[in-house]
Amino acid sequence: MNNLLLVNTRTKKIEAESCTDKQRLTGGRSFIAHYLLNNSDPACEPLGRKSKFIVASGLLGDTALTTSGRSSIGGKSPLTGGIKESNVGGAAGRKLANLGFRAIILEDMPQEPSTGVLYVKNGKAEIISFPGLKCREVSDTFDVLFDRFGKNVGIYCIGPAGEMGLASACVATSDHTGQQLRVAGRGGMGAVMGSKGIKAIVIDDSDKKKPDTYDRKALSSAAKEVAKIIRDDPKTENRHDFGTPAVLSMCNSLGILPTRNFSSGSFEDADKISGEKVAELILKRGGDARRGLPCVRGCSIQCSNIFADKNGKKLVASLQYENIALLGSNCGISDIDAIAVLNDRCNQVGVDTIETGASIGVAMEAGLLEFGDSDGARDLIDQIGRGTYLGRIIGSGVSVTGKVLNVKRIPAVKGQAMPAYDPRSLKGIGVTYSSSAMGADHTAGNALEMAKFMDPAARDGQVEVSLRLQIRGVILDSLGVCLFIRPAFVKDPGLVARLINAKYGTDYDYPDIQKMAIDCLKAERKFNDLAGLPADRCDIPEFMREEPLPPKNNVFDIPRDEIEDIFKAKVPAEIF
Amino acid sequence: MNNLLLVNTRTKKIEAESCTDKQRLTGGRSFIAHYLLNNSDPACEPLGRKSKFIVASGLLGDTALTTSGRSSIGGKSPLTGGIKESNVGGAAGRKLANLGFRAIILEDMPQEPSTGVLYVKNGKAEIISFPGLKCREVSDTFDVLFDRFGKNVGIYCIGPAGEMGLASACVATSDHTGQQLRVAGRGGMGAVMGSKGIKAIVIDDSDKKKPDTYDRKALSSAAKEVAKIIRDDPKTENRHDFGTPAVLSMCNSLGILPTRNFSSGSFEDADKISGEKVAELILKRGGDARRGLPCVRGCSIQCSNIFADKNGKKLVASLQYENIALLGSNCGISDIDAIAVLNDRCNQVGVDTIETGASIGVAMEAGLLEFGDSDGARDLIDQIGRGTYLGRIIGSGVSVTGKVLNVKRIPAVKGQAMPAYDPRSLKGIGVTYSSSAMGADHTAGNALEMAKFMDPAARDGQVEVSLRLQIRGVILDSLGVCLFIRPAFVKDPGLVARLINAKYGTDYDYPDIQKMAIDCLKAERKFNDLAGLPADRCDIPEFMREEPLPPKNNVFDIPRDEIEDIFKAKVPAEIF
Repeated sequence: MNNLLLVNTRTKKIEAESCTDKQRLTGGRSFIAHYLLNNSDPACEPLGRKSKFIVASGLLGDTALTTSGRSSIGGKSPLTGGIKESNVGGAAGRKLANLGFRAIILEDMPQEPSTGVLYVKNGKAEIISFPGLKCREVSDTFDVLFDRFGKNVGIYCIGPAGEMGLASACVATSDHTGQQLRVAGRGGMGAVMGSKGIKAIVIDDSDKKKPDTYDRKALSSAAKEVAKIIRDDPKTENRHDFGTPAVLSMCNSLGILPTRNFSSGSFEDADKISGEKVAELILKRGGDARRGLPCVRGCSIQCSNIFADKNGKKLVASLQYENIALLGSNCGISDIDAIAVLNDRCNQVGVDTIETGASIGVAMEAGLLEFGDSDGARDLIDQIGRGTYLGRIIGSGVSVTGKVLNVKRIPAVKGQAMPAYDPRSLKGIGVTYSSSAMGADHTAGNALEMAKFMDPAARDGQVEVSLRLQIRGVILDSLGVCLFIRPAFVKDPGLVARLINAKYGTDYDYPDIQKMAIDCLKAERKFNDLAGLPADRCDIPEFMREEPLPPKNNVFDIPRDEIEDIFKAKVPAEIF
Repeated sequence: MNNLLLVNTRTKKIEAESCTDKQRLTGGRSFIAHYLLNNSDPACEPLGRKSKFIVASGLLGDTALTTSGRSSIGGKSPLTGGIKESNVGGAAGRKLANLGFRAIILEDMPQEPSTGVLYVKNGKAEIISFPGLKCREVSDTFDVLFDRFGKNVGIYCIGPAGEMGLASACVATSDHTGQQLRVAGRGGMGAVMGSKGIKAIVIDDSDKKKPDTYDRKALSSAAKEVAKIIRDDPKTENRHDFGTPAVLSMCNSLGILPTRNFSSGSFEDADKISGEKVAELILKRGGDARRGLPCVRGCSIQCSNIFADKNGKKLVASLQYENIALLGSNCGISDIDAIAVLNDRCNQVGVDTIETGASIGVAMEAGLLEFGDSDGARDLIDQIGRGTYLGRIIGSGVSVTGKVLNVKRIPAVKGQAMPAYDPRSLKGIGVTYSSSAMGADHTAGNALEMAKFMDPAARDGQVEVSLRLQIRGVILDSLGVCLFIRPAFVKDPGLVARLINAKYGTDYDYPDIQKMAIDCLKAERKFNDLAGLPADRCDIPEFMREEPLPPKNNVFDIPRDEIEDIFKAKVPAEIF
């Protein structure tokens, strides 16, 4: 992973460039932060000529480490106006790394809208004109591209929403089986990709070379240790069996499950949409239905699934907690089959399920449709795909939807919709939402896992917890691994340094890794400052400080200035 | 003007409070800046409970000085997210001052949307429930209220757009004849007023007392000097005869007339919509048509008009330059009668003509309708009033419209549409647009008048010019006078201090007045900083730095950092 692929989408000129030493040693999210800060104008318009779109591989993207091979998708977000990294599994990230690319960078934009395909093979690349892909939905696009380029390629693509430049547009990617559709949902990266006139990036690594590794044996030994810890961890079996939906019941009992546009933290029909119910139905229904699937090849946790209807016909692959919560309880919808369909419709149209579920919740609060109306919700998603005026409103994200429809309760921070953890009763994540350069993003530092060690609704200690989790988040997103790998690193933070040293011949210890993460956070904050989105202005929506959240009846009460000082806090240099 | 009227729109509790000494000596825009900074949370949601809505009278609001009696409408803007003051003529400002009020401040918001009327008479006030006003257009609302409260009241009201919370909603006010409709258009103050559940504020000053004046004779003498200078100024006759539309031909020949969504600075049909043409038609058509009307009682310039159709039937009162340019040339519309109708429809629905004209121009660029399609434009404005999805998009302002419709050329700064002076060929105003806390607002410092002293497209000197004009703008908006009074103050800046000293018994000289203005600018910038809208982040839309503007083919090229340093510049302390 020593090269960058620079693609000028206006002139169609494509160049491979060697990484600097520093670029070689920053992966994924860290690479994106430094690259955008140093090589783009943070004040640029997100969908304009000066904006850049990046797909980056993680530091360990071409290794056999469990969960590795994820992709970081980054750019300037049309939702937040700040920097964004959206992380996703699937097959393409490893293939990108296999070809030796740290990143692909799309620059400038074509004079006319276009649906080109960037085809990358063996270090060469070209933009292929592909007008037939215009307005195609995501799975359809995959089918066309697999047909043209073979089943073994990795694909990133956008749906109609990305072509339309809608701010909630996502980037979808295929898995190695072609069955699952994985999504880099947050921040509207699909709109940025669409603005470059690129409908899809196809990565063919059939000519891949042996990865460049400093000490194969040491790498293999460290990776095996990680795998063993994960295998022995008691959470792993639960994750394998129930996946991310496993947390729904817990969130419901903590009173943080978004319900009817964040007006309640518990849903009376939680048992109908829980992880247990999802797993039960998958086992019962059979057919296409599966659980325990990996989203990247070689993952030993395998928490993913294919969810099928009563006849065993695939409805969506995969069904995840955020999607169930935002499109389900947050919209008052308790029919899990209907939720699965809404989830798939979002995937196909190419919009983030979190942003879209939040927007639909706001539309329901505005009275456009009733809470619980899954047909109406589906119609709204279809309207996004067709680009009707209402569809475009919803597809522009929850802040625009709330503004246009004059709704006061808008669950967003920095213009981006909140994931499925109401910060009034899980205050640590509220600190993350409001202080992260990423806006409301649970993957930037999710305090849920701390709920068993501390009162999640307590005021004290949340800022420190959030900072620690934010640093951890950067590390994982820079390695290109899943956050479910963390038990290994929590047990032995030294493993992170051992893995990187074995791969790159460095002599890091864990504090060096932590410093890399802090440098990334600093770069992201600086980018946002220069973009006119002050990094030290931290708050969550006014209503969350005013309206107590049933059933626990908490408000968010961590003082803004305490949060604003978060990056002055110290984090123990040895703790992951 | 020693009192504030504090109106809690939730509890309906109304209190009069004495001004502090400082509040007594800051009027209009200055009052708003300091009051909002010191008495509200800048980070609040513009349409939420913590936001405040202010109507303030100017320092000289109850004097006989020519052009005095204007109102400052202020609050936190739903368009920009920053502080906003929008200035307007009409009858109510003087009446407010006559009752001894420096300001009315609406606080909190009702639990349910409402269309109450705040009735203020002789220092007392009440909120009268008036459900029949729901969704009423502006003139219709005036009629109902004149009928109920008598012809001599002054009225501020909102149209349907303000009730719907649309970010381009304006506050309309009546003149002393009941014929003209004057509009505080910028910044969405109508949405803020609407969020308070107040459809109208009715000011009855029939019990007014003699104004509190320190030295009547000195005031009268200074006011007479002002009037004489204005009378003798060569521009006055032109203003009287042609009003603000007089500048259209000049703007066209300078190449700064917004044309077809700011894609050109000159319009081939400029002569069909010029000030000369408007005046000619008014004289020719007769009937309701009039020119040379005052917008505040006692103004000696009288630049306003009533524009009538071929049969002499009133189309709009009055027709102003900004409206002709944004709804006309900017939309490719050259039929002045059609423009007058569009202008009136905006007034009646209750949206800012500048914001709406810009939004329609963007919708035309998006291909929703053709440039030049005045019927289509009218339909869009009607849709705002009806609250259709498309109407709500357009009514949410040009930034939202551009985002939702995926248009790259969005003529806005800080989320607010640009007035009718393209900054590529009038660079001083570009400095104002980008550095003013008010966003793109020509009244914050319009460099047009400097075009005869310097090359308007030169890079050098524009920052200093803008700063000087910004200071001047604050002074005029704090006195409650029209910017057409400036020839008097340019000739003798000492007159400003003489007027205030005579009114208040102070012993200011002009540098003291200038300091008051600089303090206001500082307070506004501080408010924006605390609101998360960095005051030192100055730029105009990317396309204006990239696309040369025909016919002069200039781009906006004043470096961002030079503009960001504007408030470090010095302004000669003696020059108005």
